[in-house]
Amino acid sequence: MIACLDPDRRTTALRDLPAWQLSKDGLTIHRTLRFGGFAAAFAFMTRVAFEAERRDHHPDWRNVYDRVEIALTTHDAGGLTERDIALARFIDDLVPPAAPAG
Amino acid sequence: MIACLDPDRRTTALRDLPAWQLSKDGLTIHRTLRFGGFAAAFAFMTRVAFEAERRDHHPDWRNVYDRVEIALTTHDAGGLTERDIALARFIDDLVPPAAPAG
Amino acid sequence: MIACLDPDRRTTALRDLPAWQLSKDGLTIHRTLRFGGFAAAFAFMTRVAFEAERRDHHPDWRNVYDRVEIALTTHDAGGLTERDIALARFIDDLVPPAAPAG
Amino acid sequence: MIACLDPDRRTTALRDLPAWQLSKDGLTIHRTLRFGGFAAAFAFMTRVAFEAERRDHHPDWRNVYDRVEIALTTHDAGGLTERDIALARFIDDLVPPAAPAG
Repeated sequence: MIACLDPDRRTTALRDLPAWQLSKDGLTIHRTLRFGGFAAAFAFMTRVAFEAERRDHHPDWRNVYDRVEIALTTHDAGGLTERDIALARFIDDLVPPAAPAG
Repeated sequence: MIACLDPDRRTTALRDLPAWQLSKDGLTIHRTLRFGGFAAAFAFMTRVAFEAERRDHHPDWRNVYDRVEIALTTHDAGGLTERDIALARFIDDLVPPAAPAG
Repeated sequence: MIACLDPDRRTTALRDLPAWQLSKDGLTIHRTLRFGGFAAAFAFMTRVAFEAERRDHHPDWRNVYDRVEIALTTHDAGGLTERDIALARFIDDLVPPAAPAG
Repeated sequence: MIACLDPDRRTTALRDLPAWQLSKDGLTIHRTLRFGGFAAAFAFMTRVAFEAERRDHHPDWRNVYDRVEIALTTHDAGGLTERDIALARFIDDLVPPAAPAG
């Protein structure tokens, strides 16, 4: 069984995922993305859906028109694991976080 | 602009949509569906996505593995309209509500 | 490596797949499906696409509006294998061949 | 009804679509695209599928693993029209033609 990230590893991993928020309980990371419209949002979801199946690791996600909210956690481990980090990275490769303003 | 359903019409419409729940505030209907797995759930979403685009009326929906939760409302009207009823019917035609037990 | 079906097995397998045609060279099976429109055709393709990825066995397929033509063969084996039969069965389970007229 | 492109307009339009080939009969343009794998190819197709529906103008396309071959023509007009040019441009915006070598 896959183990939850220890606090040090979690800190390091999240440093590379600035678009993702850690939930208050520390068990989930989430990111909200916006697209040019519903079709672009859904095509993005399709690409992620294939990757989720390939990894057998699926997001908890919500879509409203051009917005996709993605939450990642590993239910079997009861928290964040390398699986979540890997899927978050895949998503960031598809849609890089906007460059920080300023 | 499309008008919200009056109470009588709403009652009649929902009678034909037994799988859908009305929210407490009366502004939204929602249905939860389960599929044989993630792929079946996502293929269903794809079919609905095309219909949503065609009608320019999009659901607020959430997917977790084999489960799809769909909420319908008409933001422009501030509540339920015939657009929601029509999309709910389309969804029920794709995945008929389970026959009531007993 | 997976082996090509021997003639007896091929005959038996195709008996259960009446909607599929064997190519003249005996290396490929193909089926044409029609749907209620483009959206239904593409949603069907999406469901098959996930299965193809899961099996790491992909169709050679063509879509024109409401029509999907699917050809199956196993390139690594240079002909028909159990992989093709299994994917054809999956497709037939999704869209059963029409009952024969008369 | 939409009219076929006259020769001058066709020449001008195709100059801006260097990744597209004109068929010998002059009635169709086609482009072949390759992706990082099947999932990327299919997600691309999903994006184009929504656009095709939106425009009510659908490609004749074929997919084999990471390859997508797209042919565009306007059946109602019996040849190439502005609809084909517009859809080709949309596709090129999604996947820009590779920069010419040298």
